[in-house]
Amino acid sequence: MSDDTTHSDIYDRITSEAPSHLDVTEVQYEGPELVIYTETPREFAEDGDLLGDIARSLRKRVTIRPAPGTQSSPTEAETTIREIVPDDAQIQDLEFYPTIGEVLIEAKKPGLVIGRRGGTLREITQQVGWNAEVVRTPPIESSTVDNVRNFLTQERGERREFLKQVGEQIHGSPRKDVEWVRVTTLGCCREVGRASFVLHTPNTRVLIDCGDKPGAEGEVPYLHAPEAMPLTDIDAVVLTHAHLDHSALLPLLFKYGYNGPIYTTEPTRDLMGLLQLDYLSVASKEGRSPPYSSEQVRQAIMHTIPVEYGDVTDIAPDIKLTMHNAGHILGSASAHFHVGDGFHNVVFSGDVHYEPTRLFNGAVNDFPRAETMIMESTYGRRGDFQTDTAKSEANVHQIIHETYKKDGITVIPAFAVGRSQELMLVLEEAMREGDLPTMPVYLDGMIREATAIHTAYPEYLRDGLRQRILHEDENPFIAEQFRQVDGGQEMREEIASGEPCVILSTSGMVTGGPIMSWLELLGPNPNNTLLFVGYQAAGTLGRRIQSGHTEIPMEGRSGRANHLTLAFRIESVSGFSGHADRAGLKKYVKEMNPRPETILCVHGDEQATDQLSSALYQQYNVRTYSPKNLETFRFP
Amino acid sequence: MSDDTTHSDIYDRITSEAPSHLDVTEVQYEGPELVIYTETPREFAEDGDLLGDIARSLRKRVTIRPAPGTQSSPTEAETTIREIVPDDAQIQDLEFYPTIGEVLIEAKKPGLVIGRRGGTLREITQQVGWNAEVVRTPPIESSTVDNVRNFLTQERGERREFLKQVGEQIHGSPRKDVEWVRVTTLGCCREVGRASFVLHTPNTRVLIDCGDKPGAEGEVPYLHAPEAMPLTDIDAVVLTHAHLDHSALLPLLFKYGYNGPIYTTEPTRDLMGLLQLDYLSVASKEGRSPPYSSEQVRQAIMHTIPVEYGDVTDIAPDIKLTMHNAGHILGSASAHFHVGDGFHNVVFSGDVHYEPTRLFNGAVNDFPRAETMIMESTYGRRGDFQTDTAKSEANVHQIIHETYKKDGITVIPAFAVGRSQELMLVLEEAMREGDLPTMPVYLDGMIREATAIHTAYPEYLRDGLRQRILHEDENPFIAEQFRQVDGGQEMREEIASGEPCVILSTSGMVTGGPIMSWLELLGPNPNNTLLFVGYQAAGTLGRRIQSGHTEIPMEGRSGRANHLTLAFRIESVSGFSGHADRAGLKKYVKEMNPRPETILCVHGDEQATDQLSSALYQQYNVRTYSPKNLETFRFP
Repeated sequence: MSDDTTHSDIYDRITSEAPSHLDVTEVQYEGPELVIYTETPREFAEDGDLLGDIARSLRKRVTIRPAPGTQSSPTEAETTIREIVPDDAQIQDLEFYPTIGEVLIEAKKPGLVIGRRGGTLREITQQVGWNAEVVRTPPIESSTVDNVRNFLTQERGERREFLKQVGEQIHGSPRKDVEWVRVTTLGCCREVGRASFVLHTPNTRVLIDCGDKPGAEGEVPYLHAPEAMPLTDIDAVVLTHAHLDHSALLPLLFKYGYNGPIYTTEPTRDLMGLLQLDYLSVASKEGRSPPYSSEQVRQAIMHTIPVEYGDVTDIAPDIKLTMHNAGHILGSASAHFHVGDGFHNVVFSGDVHYEPTRLFNGAVNDFPRAETMIMESTYGRRGDFQTDTAKSEANVHQIIHETYKKDGITVIPAFAVGRSQELMLVLEEAMREGDLPTMPVYLDGMIREATAIHTAYPEYLRDGLRQRILHEDENPFIAEQFRQVDGGQEMREEIASGEPCVILSTSGMVTGGPIMSWLELLGPNPNNTLLFVGYQAAGTLGRRIQSGHTEIPMEGRSGRANHLTLAFRIESVSGFSGHADRAGLKKYVKEMNPRPETILCVHGDEQATDQLSSALYQQYNVRTYSPKNLETFRFP
Repeated sequence: MSDDTTHSDIYDRITSEAPSHLDVTEVQYEGPELVIYTETPREFAEDGDLLGDIARSLRKRVTIRPAPGTQSSPTEAETTIREIVPDDAQIQDLEFYPTIGEVLIEAKKPGLVIGRRGGTLREITQQVGWNAEVVRTPPIESSTVDNVRNFLTQERGERREFLKQVGEQIHGSPRKDVEWVRVTTLGCCREVGRASFVLHTPNTRVLIDCGDKPGAEGEVPYLHAPEAMPLTDIDAVVLTHAHLDHSALLPLLFKYGYNGPIYTTEPTRDLMGLLQLDYLSVASKEGRSPPYSSEQVRQAIMHTIPVEYGDVTDIAPDIKLTMHNAGHILGSASAHFHVGDGFHNVVFSGDVHYEPTRLFNGAVNDFPRAETMIMESTYGRRGDFQTDTAKSEANVHQIIHETYKKDGITVIPAFAVGRSQELMLVLEEAMREGDLPTMPVYLDGMIREATAIHTAYPEYLRDGLRQRILHEDENPFIAEQFRQVDGGQEMREEIASGEPCVILSTSGMVTGGPIMSWLELLGPNPNNTLLFVGYQAAGTLGRRIQSGHTEIPMEGRSGRANHLTLAFRIESVSGFSGHADRAGLKKYVKEMNPRPETILCVHGDEQATDQLSSALYQQYNVRTYSPKNLETFRFP
C-alpha cells in the first residue's frame, strides 16, 4: 500500500487535485469514508465530476462537508430547499445537524429530492451550503425503521467519534505482508444454524455472521476458539443477512467488549434489530435468561456501518469488502473480500437464491475474481430439488381452497422475514385474479412489521415490485384482506372459531411464538390444515410434526406439561424456500466466471455438504471441502 | 475421569490398599509420577508385587520414597551397597540426596545393579532404606552427558518444585468435556524444516516439536498463530527427536515465558542440548545474533521429563502420551496421544525409518488405536526409492577405494547425529573385513561427542550393537582408525595435504561448520571426492552442489566474498538416509493394524506430500491430506 494513506499526504493530494479556487480546510476519515471539509461547498457542488475524480484517483469513498460557518441559517435553508425540490417528492421532515453541516430530508419519493444524476441534491448544497442526505418515508409505517432512525439521530455525536476511530484504523498502513489468508469455521459446518466464520490475514481479523442454532438452545458458535479470541481485538464484523441463525449472537460480541464496526446493508441492520429484540422477548417468555440485553442490540445498531450492494468499501488496511445481492431475504448479501493488493479473493455466499423470486432478483454470482468461496448447502443433497414455482403456487391454492370448502382454516408457519412476504404476494395475486376466494389473511407475530421494513427499502426488491410499492394503489402489501393479529389470545380464539381464513404465523420452524397457540387452537379440528412452506431444521418441533409425529408436548395452562394430539391435515409444499435447491446451487457455481479454485460447502447437514461437495468437485473440477466446525483453512 | 485424582482420595485409596503394617506418611505428584513416602521403605521393597498392584489399580506411574529419618547414614549405606552389588557392575560413583531419600549409583554395567526383575535394587532399599537410581557410565566419555547430569543434580531442588507443580496440573480434573481434538500445523507442511504442531482439546494444548528450517534463516514455525498463543499457557511440549529442524527453537519458548515440561526420551534430551548449543555457536560464528542464549538451553533441559519407549504417561488431565521407537536417530520417537477416555488417538510419526538399520531397530507402527496420524513424507515422491543397503555400502566402498587409489581424500558431509554413526559402522566393518584398506577416518565437528552419547544409551540401539558396545574390545566406535579433528585449522591443513583418508564432517547439508573449510582445502584437487550420503534440503549449499553448481561463494580470509571452483569428484549415494523411502513409508502404513482413518502427510516438499497423500488414499483407502502451514484440523 502506498504512503498516500497518511493524513498529511492525503491532504496534500486533495489540495493539489482540487482547482485552486476551491478551499479545502480539513480532511478526515469517518469509517470507510474520506470526508473533505471546505469553505466553498457551493463551488464543489457546481463541478459534478470533481468529487468522482478525487474518489477514483484516491480509490476511496469521498464525501464533501461544508466547513462550519459557511451555510445559510436552518430557517432560510428550509425555505430554499422546499423551493428547489418538486412538491411531488412529498417532503415529510427536515432536520439540520450543524456539527456535521448536514440536513436530513425525509420524503415519500426520495428520487425526486436527489434528481437526475444527483443534480437536485447538488443544487441544494450550492444554494444553502448544507450537505443533504435523503431517506424514504416508508409506505407502511414501521416502528423499527422509525426507532432505528431516531436512535441514530440521537447518538450522532457518539457515532461520529466511533466513525473517526474506525476510519483511522482502516486507513492505517498494514504492518505485515499479506502472505496468507485463513478462514476458521466457528459454526454451521455439517449442520444448519450458528453461522459464523473468522477471516484472518497477518494484519486483520474479520468475523462473518454470528448466529444461533434453531432447535438447539445453547449451541452457539465456537467464539472461544483461539482464532476468534480475544473478541475485543476483532477488526470488523460482516453480517450477510438478518435471520437469527446468522445474526442472533452479534450483540453478545458487544457484551464481551467488542467495540468495532458491523458492515451490512441498511435493511439488514433494521431487520436484525427487529429479530434480535424478538429473540430476547421469546427467551424471556420461555423463562430462559437471554445471553444479552436490549442495550447490546442498540450497541450493535450504533456500530453498524451500512454498505450498498456493489460498493467497494475499505474495511481494513488490507481488506476491501463488496456486498452483492444474494436473493435470499431483504438486504441479504454475499460478502466478497478482496485481500491484500490482489493477493486473494474470498466470497462468503451467505444464504442464496439463484433464480429470481417474486420478491427479489436472483443472487449475483459475477465477481471479478473469487479464488475461494464459502458456500451454503442447505439443499445440497441428491434429490433436494424443489417443485417449480408455478406448481408450488398451484399446490398452495389447492390446499387452501380444499380447506376453505370444508369451512376450515389454513395456518402456515413462516419466518417473519422473507417467506411471509412471498406468500402474501402469492395470496394477494390469487385472490385478485380469482384463483382463490377472497378471505381474510391474518398476520401473527412480527410479520406485519417485517413487511413494513420491506416497503421502506424498495430498492432492495425485485424491479417490478419496487414500482408497485411506490404507487399506493398498487402496493400489494396493503391489500384489504391482510389483517394484523393485534388482539392477543382472545382475538386468536375468535379467529379460530370463525370463518375460513388463512393465518401466517411465526415462528417458521414451530420453535415458539404465536404458532404454538395456533397449534392448540386449530390442531384438534380435522377440517383445518397446517401447511409447511419452509425448511424445518433437525431438532425443531416443525421437523418432528413434518415427519409424522402428531402427539406433541405442550405447556399446559397450569404450566404443567401435557400432550396435544394433532388431528388437522398436515401438508408440505416446497418451492417457496429462500434457498436455492441443489440444481440452483450447482447452476450458481456453473455460471460463475471465472469459477473459484476452492469451495467450502457449509450450512447444510452432513449429507448435504458432502454430496454437494462431491458433485461440484466432479462436475466443475473445483477443489471442494465439507469442513467441520473448528477447522482453519489457509489460502491460497 | 473419576474423583480419585484428588489428593486426599488418592491418599485414602493407597492406605487402604497397602497392608496395614506398611506405613504411608504422604503421597505427592512429581510430574507424571505419584510418589509415596513411607516410614517403612524396607517392608515396601520386600513385597515385589505391591508397587505394581498399586500402579495398575490407580493407572498411574508410582514411586516409593523413604520418609526422612528412616535410612542408614550415607557412609553405612555406601558400604552396604558395595557389598550387595557384584563387583562386575563396576560402580563408578555414589551420590546421596537426603531431601528425596535417593542414592544415585553410576556404574559401567547398570544391569547388574538392578538385578533380575529389579531384585538387587529392592534388596538395596530393604537394607539401607535409600531409594536407588542407576545410571550408566558411558563407555566413551561424553562431556554432554556429564554436563547434563551434573546440571540436573545441582538443580535438584528447583526441579523438584517444578515437578510438583506439573504433577498437580496433570492430575487435576479436566474442566470441559473432550468433544474435539484439533491439530494446527505451525511448520513443515509442504516443506522440510521448522517442524511444529499444536494438539489441542477443550482443556489442553500440547506443542509437538519446534524446529528451524535449514537453508532458510529466519523462517521459524508460526508460533504467533492464535492456536499457539499465548505460549505461556501451553500445557506441555513433546519433542520427537533432537535434530535441529525439530528442536532448534524449543529454548525460545522459555525466553517467551513458557515454564512447563518437555517430554522426550533421555538421549534426545542430551542430544538436543548438544545441538542447540552448537546452533548458538554457529550463529555467533556467522555473525548472526541467535534468538536465545545458552541460559534457555539449560532451562529446556531443566524442564525435560524423560519418558521411555512404551511407557504410558499422563501429561494432562485428558491426554496420555506414549513414545515409541521411530528408527530415525538415537532416541527418536513417534508420539502417540490417547485423548480423553478413549475419545480419540493421534500419532505424530516424527521422522521414521521403518526397516531396521545398522544402528536402530525399525520404527514401531503397532499402536492399539490410532485414528489419526500426522506422518512424515520426506521421500514421498514417486521415484523416491533408495538403493538397498548392501548396494549402497558397496558404492561407498568403491568410491572411497577409487579415491584412495588416486591418493585422494574422501570427505563426507554428515549430520553429527545419526548418519555419522551409521557410516562409522560401515567403515569399521569394511576395514575389519578387508573390503577397504584400513586408513584414518577423521571425525570433524561434533561427531565424536554425538557418538559418545550413543554409547551412553545402548538400550536405544539395535539389539546386537548394544551387546558389542558393552564389551570394550568389540565396541566399533572406539576402533583405532577413528580420529578426532581437535587441532583446528592447522590440523585440517595437515590432513588435507597428507595421506589418503576419509573425513566425516558437519554440517550435513553444507550450511556451515567445518565442512566449509574442507571444501576450500579439498575442493580444488580433482583427486579428492565429495560424497553426499544424506538428504540435501532445498535452499542449502549442499543441494546446490549436488545439483551441479561448482562455482560457489566463499567468505575469503579477508572477510570479503569470493568464489571457489570445485574440481573434485562429486558423488551421491542414497540408502543411508535416516528416513524411510517411499516404499518404506507405504509399507509403514500398510502394515499398521488397525490403519488410521485419517493421515496428514507433512514434512516433505509439496510434490512429496501430495504424491504420498494420493498414493495412501488410493491404495489403503485412508482419508489423506497434504496440509499447508497454518491450517487447523478437527478430529474425529
